[in-house]
Amino acid sequence: MEYTTKQIIVRYHETDQMHFVHHSNYLKYFELARLEWLSNLQISYAEVESRGIFMPVVNASLKYIKPLVFGDNFSVTVILKKEPTATLEFDYKILNQNKQLISTGNTLLAFLSSDTKLPIRCPKFLLEKFN
Amino acid sequence: MEYTTKQIIVRYHETDQMHFVHHSNYLKYFELARLEWLSNLQISYAEVESRGIFMPVVNASLKYIKPLVFGDNFSVTVILKKEPTATLEFDYKILNQNKQLISTGNTLLAFLSSDTKLPIRCPKFLLEKFN
Amino acid sequence: MEYTTKQIIVRYHETDQMHFVHHSNYLKYFELARLEWLSNLQISYAEVESRGIFMPVVNASLKYIKPLVFGDNFSVTVILKKEPTATLEFDYKILNQNKQLISTGNTLLAFLSSDTKLPIRCPKFLLEKFN
Amino acid sequence: MEYTTKQIIVRYHETDQMHFVHHSNYLKYFELARLEWLSNLQISYAEVESRGIFMPVVNASLKYIKPLVFGDNFSVTVILKKEPTATLEFDYKILNQNKQLISTGNTLLAFLSSDTKLPIRCPKFLLEKFN
Repeated sequence: MEYTTKQIIVRYHETDQMHFVHHSNYLKYFELARLEWLSNLQISYAEVESRGIFMPVVNASLKYIKPLVFGDNFSVTVILKKEPTATLEFDYKILNQNKQLISTGNTLLAFLSSDTKLPIRCPKFLLEKFN
Repeated sequence: MEYTTKQIIVRYHETDQMHFVHHSNYLKYFELARLEWLSNLQISYAEVESRGIFMPVVNASLKYIKPLVFGDNFSVTVILKKEPTATLEFDYKILNQNKQLISTGNTLLAFLSSDTKLPIRCPKFLLEKFN
Repeated sequence: MEYTTKQIIVRYHETDQMHFVHHSNYLKYFELARLEWLSNLQISYAEVESRGIFMPVVNASLKYIKPLVFGDNFSVTVILKKEPTATLEFDYKILNQNKQLISTGNTLLAFLSSDTKLPIRCPKFLLEKFN
Repeated sequence: MEYTTKQIIVRYHETDQMHFVHHSNYLKYFELARLEWLSNLQISYAEVESRGIFMPVVNASLKYIKPLVFGDNFSVTVILKKEPTATLEFDYKILNQNKQLISTGNTLLAFLSSDTKLPIRCPKFLLEKFN
């Protein structure tokens, strides 16, 4: 299963004085692609949280292959790596407007009870959407 | 009443491709000075929120006089403009390491019940600290 | 003259623990609307900078009327207040998906030579686009 | 070789609505520790860039073990993994005020000519500082 965002415009404030998009922003791009995908699967993450479930990132890795610069726009492809259990694992790929590979990445997300802050299994209503 | 922070180092990611600190960061600098001051008055803002009180910014204005650049460090002076009532008004002044005036600003904060999201008056335990 | 962006989705990382979009992000929203407008007028701000012209914000003011929250989407309307001279003045209005007024604001931008960092007048090629 | 920062206070805007510091901020914390260390070794990164050398992050990985929350303060320990060549590799460790392990991470940095944007070897004046 995978999902690709529409073209996203680099925002000026995301650049740093190297004239590149600051590397911390890629984690934000991964996140917005992931949540947009959930939203497309009729999963509102706002609602997930209001049901008492947090989905924090517990592991992340990123490769920066080619810099994004102001004026670029890009898409993020997000891929669910395996069936959800106690964690969700996603791969990511960022391509610019010329289909050049900008970055790849991976994040592992846990499910947490927002009350106890303890790990829980993937809730049924999420599992169903993913299947 | 006023308070001045220690010297704060510009963080690399706060720069943009103009080689200046991005103008949105000054609101973050004002906020950290304000909360550090509260903390110095033995007011933990974390505790304020846990008592059900939010203090959102409802008005802000900023003058950018001289850019901050990477390598600079600066202090923020925060001044309480008048006795707290239903709002708190602060003036700000940012000076760099050479005592040059970088920026001035003003913010108005409201008190909000975190339950009802409605405005409330300045809570007593805060008033006492400010007097 | 004015311009309104398409609907923009609140990004998760823009929220703070009050569950509101952090107030510093509104300056970023104003900026992206302003640059998108320039882009629509066939003015690439990347190109403006590559011609040796910076357009820093020298004054900003904001009113926060209603909070934006995660799950919201919004549009930004940007209005050029008067003919460009040595400065550009814009008004802004943010509306959410229900056409509720979220925020208003104003910024004043200067033109700077990127070499000398000194103020210059609005370059002709920009003036022509605005007329 | 390693270096540990002084205690750093979590800034309010770094939190998200989970009441945790947003995970993208850890890359910023790693960066500020790295640059503070260089600065302590009498290497001004501002000067490195003005000599035409960029040091972008080309690889990053992070483990989020325990969340940082508003009210926390933390230190970052940065460790140089091996002698610098065409890349610099650093490990990181974030500890909170109670010496609890918050996060670990690793970044790989390249040296780039700011003119050609092509990789270069670690410049001598940097090598000398590291030895």
